[in-house]
Amino acid sequence: MITKNPFFFKKDYLFLKDIYKNLGLKIKEKNIKIVDIKDLAKAKSNEISFFNSLKYLDLLKKTKAKFVLTEKKYENIVEKNCKSIVVKNVLVAASNITNLFYPEALNDTIDFNVNSPDKKKYKSVFFGKHVLLGDKVQIGVGSSVGHNTIIESNVKIGRNCIIGSNVLIKNTLISNNVRILDGSIIGKKGFGFFPINEKNIRYPHIGIVRIEDNVEIGCNNTIDRGSLSDTVIGRNTFIDNQVHIAHNVNIGKNCIITAQVGFAGSSHIGKNVQIGGQAGISGHLNIGNYVQIGGGSGVIKNIPDNSKVMGYPAKDIRTFLREKKND
Amino acid sequence: MITKNPFFFKKDYLFLKDIYKNLGLKIKEKNIKIVDIKDLAKAKSNEISFFNSLKYLDLLKKTKAKFVLTEKKYENIVEKNCKSIVVKNVLVAASNITNLFYPEALNDTIDFNVNSPDKKKYKSVFFGKHVLLGDKVQIGVGSSVGHNTIIESNVKIGRNCIIGSNVLIKNTLISNNVRILDGSIIGKKGFGFFPINEKNIRYPHIGIVRIEDNVEIGCNNTIDRGSLSDTVIGRNTFIDNQVHIAHNVNIGKNCIITAQVGFAGSSHIGKNVQIGGQAGISGHLNIGNYVQIGGGSGVIKNIPDNSKVMGYPAKDIRTFLREKKND
Amino acid sequence: MITKNPFFFKKDYLFLKDIYKNLGLKIKEKNIKIVDIKDLAKAKSNEISFFNSLKYLDLLKKTKAKFVLTEKKYENIVEKNCKSIVVKNVLVAASNITNLFYPEALNDTIDFNVNSPDKKKYKSVFFGKHVLLGDKVQIGVGSSVGHNTIIESNVKIGRNCIIGSNVLIKNTLISNNVRILDGSIIGKKGFGFFPINEKNIRYPHIGIVRIEDNVEIGCNNTIDRGSLSDTVIGRNTFIDNQVHIAHNVNIGKNCIITAQVGFAGSSHIGKNVQIGGQAGISGHLNIGNYVQIGGGSGVIKNIPDNSKVMGYPAKDIRTFLREKKND
Repeated sequence: MITKNPFFFKKDYLFLKDIYKNLGLKIKEKNIKIVDIKDLAKAKSNEISFFNSLKYLDLLKKTKAKFVLTEKKYENIVEKNCKSIVVKNVLVAASNITNLFYPEALNDTIDFNVNSPDKKKYKSVFFGKHVLLGDKVQIGVGSSVGHNTIIESNVKIGRNCIIGSNVLIKNTLISNNVRILDGSIIGKKGFGFFPINEKNIRYPHIGIVRIEDNVEIGCNNTIDRGSLSDTVIGRNTFIDNQVHIAHNVNIGKNCIITAQVGFAGSSHIGKNVQIGGQAGISGHLNIGNYVQIGGGSGVIKNIPDNSKVMGYPAKDIRTFLREKKND
Repeated sequence: MITKNPFFFKKDYLFLKDIYKNLGLKIKEKNIKIVDIKDLAKAKSNEISFFNSLKYLDLLKKTKAKFVLTEKKYENIVEKNCKSIVVKNVLVAASNITNLFYPEALNDTIDFNVNSPDKKKYKSVFFGKHVLLGDKVQIGVGSSVGHNTIIESNVKIGRNCIIGSNVLIKNTLISNNVRILDGSIIGKKGFGFFPINEKNIRYPHIGIVRIEDNVEIGCNNTIDRGSLSDTVIGRNTFIDNQVHIAHNVNIGKNCIITAQVGFAGSSHIGKNVQIGGQAGISGHLNIGNYVQIGGGSGVIKNIPDNSKVMGYPAKDIRTFLREKKND
Repeated sequence: MITKNPFFFKKDYLFLKDIYKNLGLKIKEKNIKIVDIKDLAKAKSNEISFFNSLKYLDLLKKTKAKFVLTEKKYENIVEKNCKSIVVKNVLVAASNITNLFYPEALNDTIDFNVNSPDKKKYKSVFFGKHVLLGDKVQIGVGSSVGHNTIIESNVKIGRNCIIGSNVLIKNTLISNNVRILDGSIIGKKGFGFFPINEKNIRYPHIGIVRIEDNVEIGCNNTIDRGSLSDTVIGRNTFIDNQVHIAHNVNIGKNCIITAQVGFAGSSHIGKNVQIGGQAGISGHLNIGNYVQIGGGSGVIKNIPDNSKVMGYPAKDIRTFLREKKND
C-alpha cells in the first residue's frame, strides 16, 4: 500500500506567532515552529490539532499535539492536556491554518495542462482516442486507458490496470490490476464547506484517493478525495455502477458494493463487507468486518463485526423481516 | 436574477379560430388574437389557460385568462369565470396549443451546429481541449470551460464561472461565480409525456434552467429544464454529486443538497433548506424555508417552515427516532 | 424483435471428455459432442446445464439436458432425470465451461478499434463531432449520433434513432425510433463474479442488451448486458435519468420508469408497469403486468398483475398509507 501523499505542496513549517496572527489573535508565543495540522489521533508534538466536541475527549487525552484549537467553552478541558488556542469557530480556524500550510490545495478546478499521451514516455501502455494526460502522470506497463479519458497531473497508476472511456481522474494513487470503468469521476474535492448565507466557504482538501490492488470500480461512480485524511478503497473490493463515495471514506478489502449505494463522509467500512443496492451509509460511522447490509437500507449508527442488517434505520435483518411479516 | 427566456422562438399570436381548428372543434369565435398559453396564475386576459382538476379551483376564480381549456364535467364551473373550451383531454390539448405557439420547442435532440471556440470571440475565457460551443453561446470574462465539454446554442454563462470537463449544457441561463462540475447534464427536456400504448406523446418543454449567483453543482448531476415554467437553482445553493432535479423544480437560495437526492417535477423548495443524501422529494410539493430533511427520507407531502423531518414517508424527526428506538 | 445474438464467437462443439478434463474430473464418457451450455429451461439434449438449488427442482424434472453439473448432495436427485457431473462449485464449473465455448466473452475491456465514421458507409446518418465507431457497427437511415459518443463493434442500431452525446454503447441491438440520451452507458458486462478473498473471479457475460422500438432511455443511465440470457427493454418503454438496470433484467413494453430507480439482476418486469423515482427492485423477481410501484419503494418479493404497492419492503399501497396515517 502506498502511504505517502506526494501531491499537494506543503510549507515546511510555520511560526506559531504567524498562526496566531492569521487567526486574528494576540500573539502569546514566539518562534515556535509548527510543521503541520492534523487530527488529534495523528498529530505529533510539533503539529497543531483541533477539538470541537466532547465526543473526541478520549482522543484529546491521548493526543501528542501541544497546541489545540478550541472554543471558549472547552478551554479548561483542553488546558488539562495541551495548550489551547481559543477561537470562535474551530473548523473555520482549522481550515484557515490548513490553507497556510497547503497554499495550493484550494485550487481545485481544471488542469488545463493536459495533452495527448507521448507514446515514447508511456511504453507498453495502450491508449484510446482523444486521451488527455497531465504532464506528471505515471502509468505502469500493461495498463490501458480508454477513449476521451482525462487523467490530470496528480495521478499515479500501477501495472495492468484498465481505465475505461470517458473517465476523469485527479489526485489519486492507483495500485496494480485495478479496473475503473466508463464515466467514473475519481478524486475531485469533497462536498465540504462552511455554510454561510450568500457565500459558503470551502475548506481545502489535502487528502487524495488511494485505490489498492485488484479493485474494480463500475460505471458513472463518483469518489471524492479526502479533506485531511485520504479516501481509501481496499484490495480486491468490487464496486458496481452509480455508487457515490464521499471524502475520507475508508473501505476495507474484499468488499462487494452494489449499484447506487451512497457513503457520506468519513465512515470506515471493515473488510469483507457486502452492501446491497441503493443502501446509504451515514457519515462518521464504523461498520465492522464481515457485515452484510441489505439493499435499500439506511445505516445511521455503528455496526459490529459479523452483523446482518436491513431497514431504515438499519437493524438486525431477522428482526426487520419478522416485524414486516407481522405488518 | 435573469427573468426573460430568450431561447424558444414564439409566434406573436394565433387567431382563436385557428386554435379551435387545431383542436378539432367547431369554430365559435372569430378573429380574436391569443398571444400565449400560460397556467391559470400567470395567464393574462389575451392568453389561453387550462383547468383539469378541482384542486386548482382557487386559481380558476382569480385567473385573468378569458379562454380556458377544460373537460365536459368542469364546463359549468369554468363558465362562471371564463369562456370554456371543452376538450377530451385537457393536457393533450394544452400540449398541442403550446406546439402551435412554440413550433420549435419539441425539437430537442442534438445541436449539430457546435464548433471549437473562437478564441477572438471569447476573450478572457479559459478553454480546455475538445470543447464544443453552439454559435450563439455567451460566456462572461474570467470563466473556465473544461475538456470535452459541450455547450449548445441556447446557453448564456456569466462571469467567473467554472464549468468542468465532460459537461453538457443546453437551454440554460447561468449567472456569475457558478461552478458546474464534471459529467453533469443541464437543460435537457424533462421526463414529461402522455403515456399511450405503443407510442407515448411528448409535450413541448419551453422552460429553461436558471442558475443564480454562487451556485455549485456537483458531478454527474442531471437537471432538466422546465416545461411551461423554468427550473431554478437559487443563489448560493450547493448541490453534491449524482443529484437528479426534474423539470419545473424551484430551489431557493442557500440550500445544501447532498449526494444522490432526487426531486420529482414541479416542487418548490424554500431557502436555507438542507437535504441529506439519497432523500427523495415527490412532485408538486411545497417545502418551506429552513427545513431540514434527513438522509434517505421520502417526502410525499408539504413541509412547513423550520421543520426537521426524516423517514419514509417523512415525518417529524423526533417522532421518527423515538418510534424507531421503541422497535 | 431480434432474437439471435450475433456477437460473441462460439465454438461449434466440445467433446464431453474435454469438458471433464477441464473440470479436473476423471473421464467417464468419450467422443460425445456437446454444443452449448444453457440453463435448465432452455438447454436441449445435446447441451449441458447445471443444478445448484432445490428451488429449480421443477425445471430439473422438465429439462431436456442430458448432462447436468451439480453438487454431491444433489447427485441422486439429478440422476433421476439426467446424468450428473459432480463438481465442488456448480457456478464456477458453469463459468469455466462457458469460457470454453465462448473463449472471447471474458475480454470485456476497451474496443481500441474505433474510428471517426466513414461518411460513405453511413448514408443518411447524422454524426456529431468526435464520434467513434467500431468497424462492424450498423446504423439505419435517419438516425443521429451526438458528440463524443463511442459505439463499439458489437452494436446494431435501427432507423430514426437518436443517440445523444457522451454515450457509450457496446454489445447491444437497438431497434427503430429509439432515443438514448446523453451520458448513458449501455452493454458493459454485469456485476457478476465469484467472490474469493484477494481475487474475485468474473464469469463471462455472453448475453447482450436488446432495446425494442420507440424506447426512450434518459441521461446517465447504466444498462448492463446479460450473462447467459439478454437484458431486454420492451417496446415503447420510457426510462428517466440515472436509472441502473443490471444484467439479465427483462422489462416489458409500455413501462414508465422514473429517475434513480435501480434493478438488481435477472428480474422480469411485466408490461405497462409504472415505477416511481428511487424505487429499488431486488434480483430474480417477477413483477406482473399493469403494476404500479410508488417512489422510494423497495420491492423484495414477486408482485402480481394490477397491484399498486409502496413501502420498504413494498406492500399494498392502501395498507401502507393507512398504517403511516396511524403513526
